[in-house]
Amino acid sequence: MLQWLRSYRREALAGDVGAGFIVAMMMIPQGMAYALVAGLPPVAGLYASILPPIIYAMFGSSMTQSVGPMAIVALMTGAIITPLAHGSPGLHAVLAGQLALIAGVVLLLCGLLRMGFLAGFFSRPVMSGFTVGSSLVIVHGQLKPLLGASFPHMHLPSAALGLGAIVLLVLARLYLSPLLQRCGMGAGKADIASKLAPMLVVLGATALVAMFGLAGQGVAVTGAVPSGLPQLNLATSSQHWYALLKPGLLIGFIIFLISMSAAQTLAQKRNEKLVSNHELIGLGAANIASMASGGFPVTGSLSRSAVNFAAGAVTPLASIICAVLLGLALIAPTGWLALMPLPVLAATIIVAVLGMLELDTLRTAWRFDRADALAWAVTCIGVLVLGIEAGVVVGVVLSMGTLIWRASRPHIAVLGRIAGTEHFRNIERYPAETQPEMLMLRVDANLFFGNVEAVTERVEDELRTHPTARDLLLVMSAVNSIDTTALFALSELNASLKRRGIGLHLAEVKGPVMDRLRDSSLPDILNGKIFLSTAIAADFLHSRKKETP
Amino acid sequence: MLQWLRSYRREALAGDVGAGFIVAMMMIPQGMAYALVAGLPPVAGLYASILPPIIYAMFGSSMTQSVGPMAIVALMTGAIITPLAHGSPGLHAVLAGQLALIAGVVLLLCGLLRMGFLAGFFSRPVMSGFTVGSSLVIVHGQLKPLLGASFPHMHLPSAALGLGAIVLLVLARLYLSPLLQRCGMGAGKADIASKLAPMLVVLGATALVAMFGLAGQGVAVTGAVPSGLPQLNLATSSQHWYALLKPGLLIGFIIFLISMSAAQTLAQKRNEKLVSNHELIGLGAANIASMASGGFPVTGSLSRSAVNFAAGAVTPLASIICAVLLGLALIAPTGWLALMPLPVLAATIIVAVLGMLELDTLRTAWRFDRADALAWAVTCIGVLVLGIEAGVVVGVVLSMGTLIWRASRPHIAVLGRIAGTEHFRNIERYPAETQPEMLMLRVDANLFFGNVEAVTERVEDELRTHPTARDLLLVMSAVNSIDTTALFALSELNASLKRRGIGLHLAEVKGPVMDRLRDSSLPDILNGKIFLSTAIAADFLHSRKKETP
Repeated sequence: MLQWLRSYRREALAGDVGAGFIVAMMMIPQGMAYALVAGLPPVAGLYASILPPIIYAMFGSSMTQSVGPMAIVALMTGAIITPLAHGSPGLHAVLAGQLALIAGVVLLLCGLLRMGFLAGFFSRPVMSGFTVGSSLVIVHGQLKPLLGASFPHMHLPSAALGLGAIVLLVLARLYLSPLLQRCGMGAGKADIASKLAPMLVVLGATALVAMFGLAGQGVAVTGAVPSGLPQLNLATSSQHWYALLKPGLLIGFIIFLISMSAAQTLAQKRNEKLVSNHELIGLGAANIASMASGGFPVTGSLSRSAVNFAAGAVTPLASIICAVLLGLALIAPTGWLALMPLPVLAATIIVAVLGMLELDTLRTAWRFDRADALAWAVTCIGVLVLGIEAGVVVGVVLSMGTLIWRASRPHIAVLGRIAGTEHFRNIERYPAETQPEMLMLRVDANLFFGNVEAVTERVEDELRTHPTARDLLLVMSAVNSIDTTALFALSELNASLKRRGIGLHLAEVKGPVMDRLRDSSLPDILNGKIFLSTAIAADFLHSRKKETP
Repeated sequence: MLQWLRSYRREALAGDVGAGFIVAMMMIPQGMAYALVAGLPPVAGLYASILPPIIYAMFGSSMTQSVGPMAIVALMTGAIITPLAHGSPGLHAVLAGQLALIAGVVLLLCGLLRMGFLAGFFSRPVMSGFTVGSSLVIVHGQLKPLLGASFPHMHLPSAALGLGAIVLLVLARLYLSPLLQRCGMGAGKADIASKLAPMLVVLGATALVAMFGLAGQGVAVTGAVPSGLPQLNLATSSQHWYALLKPGLLIGFIIFLISMSAAQTLAQKRNEKLVSNHELIGLGAANIASMASGGFPVTGSLSRSAVNFAAGAVTPLASIICAVLLGLALIAPTGWLALMPLPVLAATIIVAVLGMLELDTLRTAWRFDRADALAWAVTCIGVLVLGIEAGVVVGVVLSMGTLIWRASRPHIAVLGRIAGTEHFRNIERYPAETQPEMLMLRVDANLFFGNVEAVTERVEDELRTHPTARDLLLVMSAVNSIDTTALFALSELNASLKRRGIGLHLAEVKGPVMDRLRDSSLPDILNGKIFLSTAIAADFLHSRKKETP
């Protein structure tokens, strides 16, 4: 926390100031537009961009993360709040803050309890399917503000502004950077300058609205934006705590996932250590701050954070400067903000979100692992059909489902001795010798509740195909852990084998696993021995067999 | 399906008939009592015991499984239906059937889609905590019928009957079998005969009620039981489909888990193969049959199945005989069933459920793995505080949580060469030699979304502590699979290392994993080589270093 401030070097200042300015110029249209996605007045998006990044700078773990409103989180906020607010704008704002508070407290607690491992509940294909599905929902939701009327109808001046803005923004994305480079600007600088296009398009459109009085012709505009910094606001709605609890958990989870994936991308570029538990704490504190200053749930945004990094940000000072600039914009006369045309804000959202429609993950998964590709598709369709909240649940269930499914297919090899050696290998791959009175199995997986059933079934199958076996040797060289369920399964297997007069032996049990087993009764009740190596076990069991014919 | 019938041997008949009779004697009080737990008229419990076991005998996979009403499933049925039925007994019965239908269809579909691996979503400690929590909820719910009034009040004649029955049943459980053995009965037979105690106690109490007119003194009795077999009944409530969908999934899952654990215990005793997908199909068909014949959700019960097995059942014919006997009981004059005192039925439930209060799993988990013990406790408390439905969700989340938590701590060893050999070992455990320009790491876990973050973090940590390393060798001997998330993480690690001028090499990649990797672009973009063995890799990298100083 604030470690970077103590060791701040003056050389970093120019980069931090420049990046702060660029990101502030991105934040103004983005923040206002995402507030509209969340069903809130545009100024809420600016409020959510001031205090949260400052607080994140104090507690978060990523140096160049830009924390603030983000498309998917805004969409989810709107989806959660709208049915509860019953059309009351005041209640809507209170509930959005309350949702940020709940998510913030959850994130903070998870961070303090060191539960950063929770990110492992979503696989990358599921996250990608979730993002693409959410992006499509966002685009669909923006069609009405873009056209000024429900599709296929349109309000001509609004549609002209909105579609014109889309054309300009797409052209800017495709050609602005090369154009600037041809004008002699460096490649890096040109890329960054092109990120200012949305702000310029919005400013131009606002000028058009002011000049031609388009607001009077039915073009929706942002409306009066209250001047001044956000006030401390701790209003909550007492009867909605329970209704917001589960959604708060879900949105907190998504906030964490989105922010972590952005921060990881940057940390790898900077060769920097990212601590997921610090990230949880930073995001938690930022969301609580967002609630207190009239905002809504916030997270780290990859698009803004990447620009922040590329524009030269070295420390979180860039985010603080950005927040200060946004604060200044609110203290200055805010009249010009009131005339921003909503169709153009919708256009900026649509073009921004189109960038999230990546199909690379799906393509790779399709070639590499069909189960992952299926998980991608089901999550994406889940978001589209069941909504974004249910989509998160679908994603977790699918991630866990693929995990358990894979776990339920452990690799188990029947071992034989490579003639004349001390080596034992899979008889399917090597010309290894087996003996009828002894069955040797190597389990190539940790033993836990997700695969004990499959392991037991396989052991019984092998015993049925080796009816002469009087001894079963489990080679544990690949087993790094055993959980309580597996311990019970081993005990039950032991009891069952004992009844049938078959010895159960273990070999090559790893140190940590053996330490664990000593805490259980298994070594005492084992109907056989524990051997150091497979060779020792095979020799012993073979010689014993000769002695007791 | 019905394979056992074609190969039926006459010697099995005596055992099957005897077991069928014993289990029918258990079924009558149990079925009626569990119907009351589900909030249904007692006869529904008998209906649920006739058609479902016959259908299960056709499709199920366990030879001696006794399918029918079961305490926890009945409790869950009641908890799901009661808020929806708004006190209407007719609607309650329709919804109970509809719930069985939904659960049955879900189970059937899961079986046809070969999703037996779903059992892996619950660890044994979680299942044990769930069972103990549910048992306590059941006991608590039976206090009122036991005492004839809400505790601490009691209706004296009812409480006398109920508490008296408890004392008798507990005494029978403790001393009846030894007593019968002392009278010359064999140990096995005595154990089985003692299982008839509940039926005898209920019959005795019914006689008392009839003799002394206790029903007239306020002792609640079962009331008129319609004579005759259940009629085909396909009534459903059209507006409740959506409300019952999620509970139907949950109860289907629990039905499967309970039945599987019972069937596994028996299959191991019989050295018999159990196919989880067949079990799903059998249970699905049985539940649909239960709906069609006026019953409610059913499952395999360990207590009854164990008695069935111990009483000599060899094939599912035992279950069919049991069902036929129950059918005969319903065709015969049912007047005597009407006077069964509810306090005594409550007593049979309480004593039966006390047997499920096992703390052995908790004790073992506590010594063996505290995380599992915590999962036990949280699930149990979850059921008690949040209810049985939420308890299932808590259980799944905890099972998955412990799994992801463990996965997020993969074992990774820094390897060194045992001087003068081709062997490479963990430098923390062996006196192995490392070289400053080369870092060798062995990942002892499959690479998947749950641990890629931890692996990447560890790799970066090691690179920071080995700043002179120009080559990173990942030894993949313990990696049996790589999922899409891990593939992306490896690609990103590769890109990051390339930028820093560090080579990324792989060694000892297993055959199936290498086959998978060839479907991806990783081998092409790899900033290094793939080696057959660690020794070859170490020699090559070392000699190359000498060449390019």
